[in-house]
Amino acid sequence: MKTDPYRVAPGQKVKLSNWATDDAGGLDKAAAKFRMEELSAALAGWQEKLYAEGRQSLLVILQARDAGGKDGVVKKVIGAFNPNGVHIANFKVPSAEEQAHDFLWRIHAQAPRQGMIGVFNRSHYEDVLVPRVYDLISSQEAGRRLDHIRNFEALLTENGTRVLKFYLHISKEEQKQRLQARLDEPSKQWKFNPGDLKDRSHWDAFSEAYEAVLATSTAGAPWYVIPADRKWFRDLLIAQILVNTLAEMKPENPPLTYDPNTIVL
Amino acid sequence: MKTDPYRVAPGQKVKLSNWATDDAGGLDKAAAKFRMEELSAALAGWQEKLYAEGRQSLLVILQARDAGGKDGVVKKVIGAFNPNGVHIANFKVPSAEEQAHDFLWRIHAQAPRQGMIGVFNRSHYEDVLVPRVYDLISSQEAGRRLDHIRNFEALLTENGTRVLKFYLHISKEEQKQRLQARLDEPSKQWKFNPGDLKDRSHWDAFSEAYEAVLATSTAGAPWYVIPADRKWFRDLLIAQILVNTLAEMKPENPPLTYDPNTIVL
Repeated sequence: MKTDPYRVAPGQKVKLSNWATDDAGGLDKAAAKFRMEELSAALAGWQEKLYAEGRQSLLVILQARDAGGKDGVVKKVIGAFNPNGVHIANFKVPSAEEQAHDFLWRIHAQAPRQGMIGVFNRSHYEDVLVPRVYDLISSQEAGRRLDHIRNFEALLTENGTRVLKFYLHISKEEQKQRLQARLDEPSKQWKFNPGDLKDRSHWDAFSEAYEAVLATSTAGAPWYVIPADRKWFRDLLIAQILVNTLAEMKPENPPLTYDPNTIVL
Repeated sequence: MKTDPYRVAPGQKVKLSNWATDDAGGLDKAAAKFRMEELSAALAGWQEKLYAEGRQSLLVILQARDAGGKDGVVKKVIGAFNPNGVHIANFKVPSAEEQAHDFLWRIHAQAPRQGMIGVFNRSHYEDVLVPRVYDLISSQEAGRRLDHIRNFEALLTENGTRVLKFYLHISKEEQKQRLQARLDEPSKQWKFNPGDLKDRSHWDAFSEAYEAVLATSTAGAPWYVIPADRKWFRDLLIAQILVNTLAEMKPENPPLTYDPNTIVL
């Protein structure tokens, strides 16, 4: 499966309305299920090596509109890893302590240590999305924040952390159906937040804010626009990108500090 | 499956040599596999409710000798949960900053927040095991630490955290086989630490140290001695105890803050 068409090239200007939300890569659900099992096994295998090696790390950043599928990706794709080697950070409304620091302070504290896979379920990109859409910061301030983000991610990548950024791209109609499903199903009603409707009413402004965010795609910290109307394709594509990336990172078991032949139990 | 026989009653004095390491609860591996699938589904269901409710939390503490199976339990049992709702803390050799504080300082910082399942892969109990066996602290100091641990765990339980403590109980022969397997299999050799042999040579002293630790079993923070020679039984028993505990905690979806019937998308 080709993953390049979904990657934002450094310097590329993205117009989200030109990117499909319902692409399925020419696959059907049955074929995808079989392929997903293979990829899950590959993910588990690579992660064990990454952990054993203990030198590099991988940071997966998930961004999406409400009901875009971030939690689904964590469950279905990240769930393939041994939980021992995964650190998930859910960034919520900043605490008073966090607000008394720069916006990257709490983010930096959650960066994955060597050998680990870190997942940011929402991230520092939130600080240039909602505030920009509601004009709480100027476009100049948003630009400065994006520069700081580029520098921060460069620091991580230079220190052995590969950064993969996924924007889960759903259509306005698909979001409507998913929010309606939450309203209709009693066991899911707690997931619905009436405040989401406000963001939904600013759909195009969020598209523009995301387009500015996607311009932070670099070779070391690329953005991928993941067609996310079909959950199974979303998961499959992300799993494939993770497998490809881990294969490129080539983690290897560490050199032994002892001679196995001399050990008698 | 009965789980009570494996729980240490408050005040009970445990002599580990009287507790089986190879118990299988009258089950065979095939029956266990089927049962494990049922329990895994139950774990995922309960955890979603715990997360939705966002009031209580569960802390799972894993302690064992080398090769006792802590990582296996994380992979097989904790792996049944949605990773989004799990926080795993692996306590390694304390940093200089951590050593400049009391022994519970770094532990407390990793306590699970409301709605979360926390896992301590090793824990504060390490501070009364190795130091006691090698006489780095007196038995009086160990006793004081155990008192502080009791108080700390009472603080957690009074604030809505259920604490479950598992000692994975393997025989000395089983440990030998598992360590030998690491030495014999090139892909596993990195897991072997020659230092483990020193601890192994103090087998009985560690048993005594663990027996003192097991005396911290309380109603709110019980210890279980898990027969762990058979990996499938170890996992099944722990999964059953987690399911029973979550069912007792009865997490429920939170009350709605809006009326679903008034929302129009």
